[in-house]
Amino acid sequence: MSDPIRPSGRTPGQLRNVSFQRGFTRHAEGSVLVTFGDTRVLCTASVENRVPGFLRGKGEGWVTAEYGMLPRATNTRNDREATRGKQSGRTLEIQRLIGRSLRACVDRRALGERTITLDCDVLQADGGTRTAAITGAYVALVDAVAKLRGRGEISRDPVHGAIAAVSVGIYKGVPVLDLDYAEDSDCDTDMNVVMNDGGGFIEVQGTAEGHAFRRSEMDAMMQLAETGVAELVALQRAALAG
Amino acid sequence: MSDPIRPSGRTPGQLRNVSFQRGFTRHAEGSVLVTFGDTRVLCTASVENRVPGFLRGKGEGWVTAEYGMLPRATNTRNDREATRGKQSGRTLEIQRLIGRSLRACVDRRALGERTITLDCDVLQADGGTRTAAITGAYVALVDAVAKLRGRGEISRDPVHGAIAAVSVGIYKGVPVLDLDYAEDSDCDTDMNVVMNDGGGFIEVQGTAEGHAFRRSEMDAMMQLAETGVAELVALQRAALAG
Amino acid sequence: MSDPIRPSGRTPGQLRNVSFQRGFTRHAEGSVLVTFGDTRVLCTASVENRVPGFLRGKGEGWVTAEYGMLPRATNTRNDREATRGKQSGRTLEIQRLIGRSLRACVDRRALGERTITLDCDVLQADGGTRTAAITGAYVALVDAVAKLRGRGEISRDPVHGAIAAVSVGIYKGVPVLDLDYAEDSDCDTDMNVVMNDGGGFIEVQGTAEGHAFRRSEMDAMMQLAETGVAELVALQRAALAG
Amino acid sequence: MSDPIRPSGRTPGQLRNVSFQRGFTRHAEGSVLVTFGDTRVLCTASVENRVPGFLRGKGEGWVTAEYGMLPRATNTRNDREATRGKQSGRTLEIQRLIGRSLRACVDRRALGERTITLDCDVLQADGGTRTAAITGAYVALVDAVAKLRGRGEISRDPVHGAIAAVSVGIYKGVPVLDLDYAEDSDCDTDMNVVMNDGGGFIEVQGTAEGHAFRRSEMDAMMQLAETGVAELVALQRAALAG
Amino acid sequence: MSDPIRPSGRTPGQLRNVSFQRGFTRHAEGSVLVTFGDTRVLCTASVENRVPGFLRGKGEGWVTAEYGMLPRATNTRNDREATRGKQSGRTLEIQRLIGRSLRACVDRRALGERTITLDCDVLQADGGTRTAAITGAYVALVDAVAKLRGRGEISRDPVHGAIAAVSVGIYKGVPVLDLDYAEDSDCDTDMNVVMNDGGGFIEVQGTAEGHAFRRSEMDAMMQLAETGVAELVALQRAALAG
Amino acid sequence: MSDPIRPSGRTPGQLRNVSFQRGFTRHAEGSVLVTFGDTRVLCTASVENRVPGFLRGKGEGWVTAEYGMLPRATNTRNDREATRGKQSGRTLEIQRLIGRSLRACVDRRALGERTITLDCDVLQADGGTRTAAITGAYVALVDAVAKLRGRGEISRDPVHGAIAAVSVGIYKGVPVLDLDYAEDSDCDTDMNVVMNDGGGFIEVQGTAEGHAFRRSEMDAMMQLAETGVAELVALQRAALAG
Repeated sequence: MSDPIRPSGRTPGQLRNVSFQRGFTRHAEGSVLVTFGDTRVLCTASVENRVPGFLRGKGEGWVTAEYGMLPRATNTRNDREATRGKQSGRTLEIQRLIGRSLRACVDRRALGERTITLDCDVLQADGGTRTAAITGAYVALVDAVAKLRGRGEISRDPVHGAIAAVSVGIYKGVPVLDLDYAEDSDCDTDMNVVMNDGGGFIEVQGTAEGHAFRRSEMDAMMQLAETGVAELVALQRAALAG
Repeated sequence: MSDPIRPSGRTPGQLRNVSFQRGFTRHAEGSVLVTFGDTRVLCTASVENRVPGFLRGKGEGWVTAEYGMLPRATNTRNDREATRGKQSGRTLEIQRLIGRSLRACVDRRALGERTITLDCDVLQADGGTRTAAITGAYVALVDAVAKLRGRGEISRDPVHGAIAAVSVGIYKGVPVLDLDYAEDSDCDTDMNVVMNDGGGFIEVQGTAEGHAFRRSEMDAMMQLAETGVAELVALQRAALAG
Repeated sequence: MSDPIRPSGRTPGQLRNVSFQRGFTRHAEGSVLVTFGDTRVLCTASVENRVPGFLRGKGEGWVTAEYGMLPRATNTRNDREATRGKQSGRTLEIQRLIGRSLRACVDRRALGERTITLDCDVLQADGGTRTAAITGAYVALVDAVAKLRGRGEISRDPVHGAIAAVSVGIYKGVPVLDLDYAEDSDCDTDMNVVMNDGGGFIEVQGTAEGHAFRRSEMDAMMQLAETGVAELVALQRAALAG
Repeated sequence: MSDPIRPSGRTPGQLRNVSFQRGFTRHAEGSVLVTFGDTRVLCTASVENRVPGFLRGKGEGWVTAEYGMLPRATNTRNDREATRGKQSGRTLEIQRLIGRSLRACVDRRALGERTITLDCDVLQADGGTRTAAITGAYVALVDAVAKLRGRGEISRDPVHGAIAAVSVGIYKGVPVLDLDYAEDSDCDTDMNVVMNDGGGFIEVQGTAEGHAFRRSEMDAMMQLAETGVAELVALQRAALAG
Repeated sequence: MSDPIRPSGRTPGQLRNVSFQRGFTRHAEGSVLVTFGDTRVLCTASVENRVPGFLRGKGEGWVTAEYGMLPRATNTRNDREATRGKQSGRTLEIQRLIGRSLRACVDRRALGERTITLDCDVLQADGGTRTAAITGAYVALVDAVAKLRGRGEISRDPVHGAIAAVSVGIYKGVPVLDLDYAEDSDCDTDMNVVMNDGGGFIEVQGTAEGHAFRRSEMDAMMQLAETGVAELVALQRAALAG
Repeated sequence: MSDPIRPSGRTPGQLRNVSFQRGFTRHAEGSVLVTFGDTRVLCTASVENRVPGFLRGKGEGWVTAEYGMLPRATNTRNDREATRGKQSGRTLEIQRLIGRSLRACVDRRALGERTITLDCDVLQADGGTRTAAITGAYVALVDAVAKLRGRGEISRDPVHGAIAAVSVGIYKGVPVLDLDYAEDSDCDTDMNVVMNDGGGFIEVQGTAEGHAFRRSEMDAMMQLAETGVAELVALQRAALAG
């Protein structure tokens, strides 16, 4: 029997331990601490009864996201973005991705003139923070919408289906699922895939870190992503039923 | 027997439940989740082998602090400071206070040319976030210094004594200890007191929110602060012994 | 007879020469050059017929302050904050203090939907700029309100009582009043005290610069502050009667 | 015979007219005006004999990109980013993509301690500005490197292979190549694909604008991208031979 | 016969080749590529149906300008202003000059509540970018206004007369017209003159780069400017008739 | 006898009362309060033993200027630039002008590797603040240089000649000298002229506010400026002799 190639000893198609702690903080309409192994992200969903200027008076709502990382969520301390006075390109890119992804499962007309802001703050990072954030933010979003419906503020459920995300990559020549930091910093290709519970793709973002990847490698990664997201959606469902 | 006047049912001189969870995250040299009732602040101490420009080559270290609040740590969502592009005056004021307070117990020469940054991030707020931050940051600082000593990087302990902080105020005419949000938002006077374990004062910052406070009220608040800080120092000691 | 310990030869409880030059500039509704010895601060009070967003339509006014220091008000030139593109934490802290202090003597309902901005610009600094600013801004505020009343714009005087501020500290082991720069840069404790003319405390901000201060030292400083503010209030009154 | 579905009358797998005008401006080491139909991007490559701090003294070079759009490159005027004081998230995302893509064909050791900055400025936009920018920047990069070699500054060619990019999407249910603005603003899926001349993938970024896309649609899009990039590489080669 | 003193071989009173390419880009209401020798500036005129706050409801329009230079328009690459996060003092000065100059030929009441923004972006610089920008922006402005009139949006022509600009200077002791970069970087005096087609002066901005200039030199420069602007106005007229 | 046309009753060629109060503040090497009628500008000259990066190691010094206006120096309060987070285009333009003007009388090699910063802060504005600033900054500069020479830090006087500035304009059809605010806000042309004591021109900046100005008007304004600057230079000399 061969040695495992992954530093964590996981098989190529194995997710890390994933958990969702709902109601992690008490003020937000939805508040979920999601963990993908040692990656821990606090996702809160906040509802406000107003919409951005470009939607005012149109009877539609908005879903947006902001992403942050505590300065010492990582191995070496990063500058605090509030202190530097601006968000990095990486941060902006990630929060745009989270926002687009979650909007893909929301009927904004059913939401009415409300904004739901998904704040995803990384307390501890070990690779895959953006995919954990999307997967956790979905649970927070569902909780927030349930609260709105419980209060009778909206009648029709604006959330249709489920959204989850996972990373895939080529690590030491092998396609693997859900890369941790040790793998992520040493892989040839890193791809983030966002899908819905119907097997449809919402976002695919792949980057060749080392050599370019072949079409066959891409196919293998897509395959892993499909099974990984299916597992994540089942875990979301279980957490929401809990 | 009279009804309690405090919304929480506490007696005037009673602290909230205070706890310190050491090792809350794994990357920082010191990482403590401190809770004062429903106020939860993650305090990390990060060590870097460099000092700010004004200290370079002087053989002394530096201790500084940064403070942040997650956007939905509070009842209504606040703008993310990284998005607005600057820290508010309140944030700057608090982080300056935390830094000054902790420097009061550090022999910077014994620390050597290192910077310890205390990041205090409020996960959930219910009043007294700055005093909880100072009290928790002390524990994180001690843990970080112990790690440096364990690695043999420094020989002499740069931390002398202990530092803790608590708020006091006049609520419905009565001097009370450790105000929670319900009290803080409806009190006449709010005072933050930072002391060391020898009963010395490091910082006193009092503000009349409603009517001006009398000298006798001030004396009563100082008295409460002295007993409160003594209790907090004992709790820090117990947590560090744990 | 012992030598004076203070560099200036003042006795421990002696203020510097304090003066108020009303009408120092001609455009502002109130314009006062206040001097505390060599500290010179130009305080102007500007009235505008609008209020910040959070007060609109509530029938109340607002009083706010801004603080600045000319680049060469001090011994070595400081960067101009407008050039650096932001105000320092110290500046924000001071202007927040001035604003809170002055609001403590204003009936904002009697002021009506107006904003009075107190601009305190330090032309020359020799310690105690924030206490001089508060003490001078009060005189400018009274002048501005008198102008409004003279024009018949408001009927009831919105200013009740007087506000003044002074610093106290422990210098070479002795509690002293109204520290100048030579004392301030070499003292163990520095405390700024804002009071009203009824002997009530508005703000107390004390910092141990060297060793922590004892309760008895604090009491001695408060005592000095009480007599110092009483003198300042008398000087304000005389200036306003002039 | 059926009507063409594309507004431009192109067949699904047809590129727009693509041209490269080398030496468009005279100062830059490489200067190329690339057009993809009505999209016109000026790509300059500037060589500087220094590297960013993190590479200093390592004997390696750096390739980076900046992207901008003239305010009236589009149908309605956009705010100038220099005036607003910051680059948008979209801009940062695009320039990070261009930089990563071009670094994939550069041997940074052969480049030596030099930085090549690829400035991609959109003079006129009609969809696909980022793929045109990557495709044109490659030609400017080759020209700049040729100049360095001509001057004898570097001995070994640091550019290996070629890089080109194209967009693909699902428009009215049909997979199409190289979307123009009319298609881009009305499509279900938009995907940008960066490849090398060996058929390897460098970047894949796909977004479901309308409904989620199926695996089979993804495969069809990848197929179109492969043939499209192959054509672009041939056009680059012809232009460089010109 | 003496050698020419100007590096370009031009006579002292000779303009560079000047051309106007109208309709250079397709989206803007007016779009002109102006060249003064090797200086190439893209001037677009964009019409928006709103005015700045200070003009709202007054029945008047506004004309404003923005100026930019592509990073490699010059011999060595300049930082992109959007990346640095602010426009330089030079840029602000130039765009204020362009705006003021063009407003001098516009009847803002006839324009109605519209804003015309003149974006002047330097694609390639060889001295005199601001005078080329003003001269080209005038042509773009006339084209934009013609479009508004063609659509029947305004009845009366808001443009009266013509505006053009040219630089003059003292180069090697000789007054010369329309300095190129080689002359500009080595001259004693540089003066930019904006005039209308009636021979009236709109702006005169002269700077002694080396020694101070005498009144007689000033007179000689004004003389050159008058003839230069007259030529430019004729060229504008010809281009607009084309 | 005709009525005076100037609001102040001055004759067309008459300066306002001009005064220089040297040593106005005590910290700066040069500190002058200059008044041109009701315009009052505090000009300080600060010497630092370092130069900007582009001059390091070249054995030359630098002279630069910063300009500011207290928020209530004018009739209605202006936003504080430090609060807004940036200097306006007007401010940058003025401080660039002051710096260029003063550099015109300094031998930077004789100054050695030192920077003199001229801070010009307007305490009260009544038109002509930039010309007053230049005229006063010259006196502060001379005082600062004298201090350097007195300390034996430099041997040769780096200041050659004198610099002064004045505004001229066309007010109600008449060329006038040294416009005050009432004239400035209602004139047809406003021109700022900087000259040296030898009658040479350093800067000429003229703007047609209303109709364009004719060559003959320009000549008349230049004439007024020449006599005005000559008077100012005499007043500077008298002040420096005092």
